[in-house]
Amino acid sequence: MKFSPLVQELIDSLKCLPGVGAKSAQRMAFHLLERNRRGGSKLSQTLALAMENIGHCEQCRNFTEEALCEICQSPKRKIATQLCIVETPADVIAIEQTGEFQGRYFVLMGHLSPLDGIGPDDLGLDILEKQLATGQFTEVILATNPTVEGEATAHFIAELTQTHDVEISRIAHGVPVGGELEYVDGNTLAHALSGRKNYSF
Amino acid sequence: MKFSPLVQELIDSLKCLPGVGAKSAQRMAFHLLERNRRGGSKLSQTLALAMENIGHCEQCRNFTEEALCEICQSPKRKIATQLCIVETPADVIAIEQTGEFQGRYFVLMGHLSPLDGIGPDDLGLDILEKQLATGQFTEVILATNPTVEGEATAHFIAELTQTHDVEISRIAHGVPVGGELEYVDGNTLAHALSGRKNYSF
Repeated sequence: MKFSPLVQELIDSLKCLPGVGAKSAQRMAFHLLERNRRGGSKLSQTLALAMENIGHCEQCRNFTEEALCEICQSPKRKIATQLCIVETPADVIAIEQTGEFQGRYFVLMGHLSPLDGIGPDDLGLDILEKQLATGQFTEVILATNPTVEGEATAHFIAELTQTHDVEISRIAHGVPVGGELEYVDGNTLAHALSGRKNYSF
Repeated sequence: MKFSPLVQELIDSLKCLPGVGAKSAQRMAFHLLERNRRGGSKLSQTLALAMENIGHCEQCRNFTEEALCEICQSPKRKIATQLCIVETPADVIAIEQTGEFQGRYFVLMGHLSPLDGIGPDDLGLDILEKQLATGQFTEVILATNPTVEGEATAHFIAELTQTHDVEISRIAHGVPVGGELEYVDGNTLAHALSGRKNYSF
């Protein structure tokens, strides 16, 4: 005994979402069918539109439905000399929200992860090379995550970038603002010590 | 700074799924866009089909894309004299998998829950009345969940059913098979004691 074919198909389709197993998919299907058909139809339409129309920005690889994303289109950013390399579109948003960076971005859409079969080709490094070859940028900021994979990716890109005439920097590791030293892990604290700066008055 | 309009719309639409907040929706959107466009398109199509075509079985209110569900269509079940009342389609599956029940079902699609605005009208009790009025059934089995809401719903339906000439039963409460008495909660143990049966050799 199973659900009716179409209900079963809906449940199976929902399982393509990350973190959604059989039970969650079932719960989602019942919720949509019983309480939110309008939401389900809206999701269906948006999904179709999104899967068809959203591509990557030609310059920075961020998701966009146009040829160039909003940031790459901005006249102020067009003449930027700093290129910030991040892993995901969410990282772009996070950095934009600080208001501290006025340069351009390059979104890797992941990190090197041989176990998952993600190699240099999947990170669009050929497009990065093209961007660097324009000679527009004087500094490349490596803002990948401070994880093992992020560090490895940063190292790989740093080596690749060395052939171009640009400064290469990595975002600072250290104690987070508002944190207490007592609860900071030893690795971070070691980084914070070795990366200390002269006190500025 | 936000994501491009269509990406943002996709994230917002995904939030209609139960248990999915802003961060999960973002993760799902990125996953579909970056790693599983085919799955996303398939989900979109299935969702559209499901939202449009899946309705309730005319007899038992279970989800089905036809007028009658598979169980209500089955010739063996058509002449059944037992009607098992459950809360959700998943409960039907669970009981079917035991292989112990050959009667028909009635699916409430929820339970009485005044706080959530779910009253008797939302449980399709008028359809239940019609089913009972046919005189086909000699026993109604109340198989709602052993929760406060489930018990209240069972009680309400029992009172409603009293006007018809049918036996009314409630599934047994007691210690689960394979459990250890030491770890069973007091309420359940009290039920198990008061519901004891003569030992059958």
